[in-house]
Amino acid sequence: MSKLCINALPKAHKYLKTKYTITQLHRSNVCAYSTLKEPKEPIVKTKEIPGPKSIELKNKLNAVQSTGTVQFFADYEKSTGNYVCDVDGNLLLDVYTQISSVPLGYNHPNLLNVFKNENNLKTLINRPALGVFPGKEWPEKLHSVLKNIAPKGLNKITTMMCGSCSNENAYKSIFIWYQNKMRGNVGFTENEMNSCMINMPPGAPKLSILSFKGAFHGRTLGALSTTHSKYIHKLDVPSFDWPIASFPQYKYPLDENVAENKREDEKCLAEVQDLIEQYKKKDIPVAGVVVEPIQSEGGDNEASPEFFQSLQGICKKNGVALLIDEVQTGGGSTGKFWCHEHFNFEHPPDVVTFSKKLQLGGYFHNDDFAPNEPYRIFNTWMGDPGKILLLEEIINVINAEKLLENVNKAGPVLKSGLLSLEKEFPNILNSTRGRGTFLAVNCANSKVRDSIVTKLKQKGIQTGGCGDIAIRFRPALIFKEYHANIVLDRLRSVLQSF
Amino acid sequence: MSKLCINALPKAHKYLKTKYTITQLHRSNVCAYSTLKEPKEPIVKTKEIPGPKSIELKNKLNAVQSTGTVQFFADYEKSTGNYVCDVDGNLLLDVYTQISSVPLGYNHPNLLNVFKNENNLKTLINRPALGVFPGKEWPEKLHSVLKNIAPKGLNKITTMMCGSCSNENAYKSIFIWYQNKMRGNVGFTENEMNSCMINMPPGAPKLSILSFKGAFHGRTLGALSTTHSKYIHKLDVPSFDWPIASFPQYKYPLDENVAENKREDEKCLAEVQDLIEQYKKKDIPVAGVVVEPIQSEGGDNEASPEFFQSLQGICKKNGVALLIDEVQTGGGSTGKFWCHEHFNFEHPPDVVTFSKKLQLGGYFHNDDFAPNEPYRIFNTWMGDPGKILLLEEIINVINAEKLLENVNKAGPVLKSGLLSLEKEFPNILNSTRGRGTFLAVNCANSKVRDSIVTKLKQKGIQTGGCGDIAIRFRPALIFKEYHANIVLDRLRSVLQSF
Repeated sequence: MSKLCINALPKAHKYLKTKYTITQLHRSNVCAYSTLKEPKEPIVKTKEIPGPKSIELKNKLNAVQSTGTVQFFADYEKSTGNYVCDVDGNLLLDVYTQISSVPLGYNHPNLLNVFKNENNLKTLINRPALGVFPGKEWPEKLHSVLKNIAPKGLNKITTMMCGSCSNENAYKSIFIWYQNKMRGNVGFTENEMNSCMINMPPGAPKLSILSFKGAFHGRTLGALSTTHSKYIHKLDVPSFDWPIASFPQYKYPLDENVAENKREDEKCLAEVQDLIEQYKKKDIPVAGVVVEPIQSEGGDNEASPEFFQSLQGICKKNGVALLIDEVQTGGGSTGKFWCHEHFNFEHPPDVVTFSKKLQLGGYFHNDDFAPNEPYRIFNTWMGDPGKILLLEEIINVINAEKLLENVNKAGPVLKSGLLSLEKEFPNILNSTRGRGTFLAVNCANSKVRDSIVTKLKQKGIQTGGCGDIAIRFRPALIFKEYHANIVLDRLRSVLQSF
Repeated sequence: MSKLCINALPKAHKYLKTKYTITQLHRSNVCAYSTLKEPKEPIVKTKEIPGPKSIELKNKLNAVQSTGTVQFFADYEKSTGNYVCDVDGNLLLDVYTQISSVPLGYNHPNLLNVFKNENNLKTLINRPALGVFPGKEWPEKLHSVLKNIAPKGLNKITTMMCGSCSNENAYKSIFIWYQNKMRGNVGFTENEMNSCMINMPPGAPKLSILSFKGAFHGRTLGALSTTHSKYIHKLDVPSFDWPIASFPQYKYPLDENVAENKREDEKCLAEVQDLIEQYKKKDIPVAGVVVEPIQSEGGDNEASPEFFQSLQGICKKNGVALLIDEVQTGGGSTGKFWCHEHFNFEHPPDVVTFSKKLQLGGYFHNDDFAPNEPYRIFNTWMGDPGKILLLEEIINVINAEKLLENVNKAGPVLKSGLLSLEKEFPNILNSTRGRGTFLAVNCANSKVRDSIVTKLKQKGIQTGGCGDIAIRFRPALIFKEYHANIVLDRLRSVLQSF
């Protein structure tokens, strides 16, 4: 194995100045690495990002694919740890991480090793229809990887490919559960079986999923009917008439606005109850409520544990399922593996969806949300066993490197730094919020926000916007206190330029 | 590299009797393999399939995941070429190939080599948000891999993950194209921007996609509204009120039923035109028509090139987009890379979706179906660059091994054999049909069909049902004439047992 290991060692980057010891794992089945090399600080070589090589590639790509959203082209061979390298040689400290989907940074040696195991390689290339012909390792992987991280109280796992299809299939599970309950666990009628084939009730019933203003749950037609973050995502696409409640809009700092924010909670909760009643009268009863623990795409809007507890109470009272969408929040960056663990729910949520940092998609649920009949929740692939092998190693590294502890150290440094900058630049920044390293701050307006994001990139920090005026921070779990200080320093210098 | 290559050679299977030379590729960047070892014929070791080890694993899996659809657990390490090996040591000749999604059989050496290249490995594990930060190789891969296989006349590619999300996003592209046309390419109104956020017209317009009875286009809520193959897929799930036309139901043999089948075409086409008009009056205008070149899940229902040409004419006349769903038919098994190439369309179809054998999902389209504004068709991953590396090698092998020619040799052997068996067993089999190796035959009834599929498996042939009474054949592209003869021999012996 030695030759393989040597070849696999990350090549020293030509801009490398200092080594940080990030991982000291010595696992029996992988090569031993002791350093993941990062530059001491970001390196920006081009006057503008995208630089000339990115622009050239953009033109080439544009001939075959839309490029309106492309920021730059990355060199993933040269990217390392918290730093993404672009094709023009810029090395950016990445606190956006591919829209919050990179848990261990770039080229983590343990992940590079996963497919050097020949059996894993065979699992990867012989992708099965998991619902019909799973590989012999599949049950064990589900137990040892996914069951191991399952939210408390949820013993079943349905695997999928991405966030949208996880939510879509979770909605279907909820509809099936609801109708089964309504018909009293008896069989289907001929009328139901025939009418559903032509998209009509009673077989294709008028049911709804209640969602919140500002929510983002994906972009396929069912998921999009519960997404309300930006009009450009929804315009011109037909939608279901499903109820939409207000999500709390808090005033910051939280400890100075306790009473007002509590009233905001109560107002939104009353709206939920009211909409459930309205849509029952409208003959489009609410089967489930879907909610993000922190509305991410919609502007990093958070709500109190009490709000979520009461929301669960309303769901229970009305016989409605509660789905917590942890696609963006799941995986550890809020300081707990699942963000909803912060809420001290009395009962487990009914369904929890995941994707992004977990590499594959899916949802945890209890037996009630597993249909009794086969082929009701199904697709060709039902996930991807190659991705669960990566997830397995990600979980190993999170545990071995105590990365949740790391998040709980780095997060407060970044958050308190943002709070200080708010005080220093009160006309530009406000409303710092979030948990762990899953943080955001509002800017004076959207023009200022966009300008800060652009200028930060020019100073070597890759962030992203969310909502109309927020900057979101989504570093990898290996982001450390000194990285936070680099971000804060560069942000201060950007703010000074206004 | 030599040690690596030796380790990577497929291990001789303990039941191996004979070697067949399937691949003789010698590519500069991969190790040279000259044999992919297969057994001489299927080997069945257990009295029933699933055997005891599969049943044990099923019980284990059932504790965490629904297993109602699981047929057996496979040993993908020991599977090879056209043969899938199960955990009980049964080696089945696989003519179902993971619901038609395995192009080169199991453990093709060229695919095993793809991720032995360190750069490819880094592409695999550093999965980017392709819409925002694509890797430097992405434009070249799109040109050299996907553009290279693009249906004639379609110059743009939107990449996705699976068949359902490919169709969902293709529908969105069609809706956006349609509305843009309707408003005359002017900007959006305030009313449109605001109303779409609450799922209401005019921003979220009442538009529809026309589909066909018996169609299968996926299971997410938009795609499911166009799926009409089996009630169990649709029951209890809310649906859009979209028009559904009859798909031709031919009488076989085709050459003895020309006039009647032509009338069937005309009846269905008239229905399409009629539904377009009806739904216009109903204020749910049809923006697009979606159709499979061969209705696969719904029973391998085919239609004539003339039917498809006339369907395109109706679409053109009514200003409606035509989407050809090649998720199951694409990739070569019909004897052409895209099944719709058999139809001699006057114009290219507007959109062609793909997935399954192509490893990643997506759709080809022209510039009209690429929205002008960014973030309208988007998701976190927009495909998976690791999958395109596999597809690249698959296309290389298809070309180097002349696999389309192979399909066009093996297909007729299987088809003519099925036609002979029809004559031999006229009370059991009828209506053999299909193109290339993408074939099906009807059975007397669904009970007989299910029984034949079960008995065939017990004789070492893995097939699958489709529709109510059909058996579908979906071998890999490396399926040869002698494999066809094995299938036919075993099928004859099953039929004799009735």
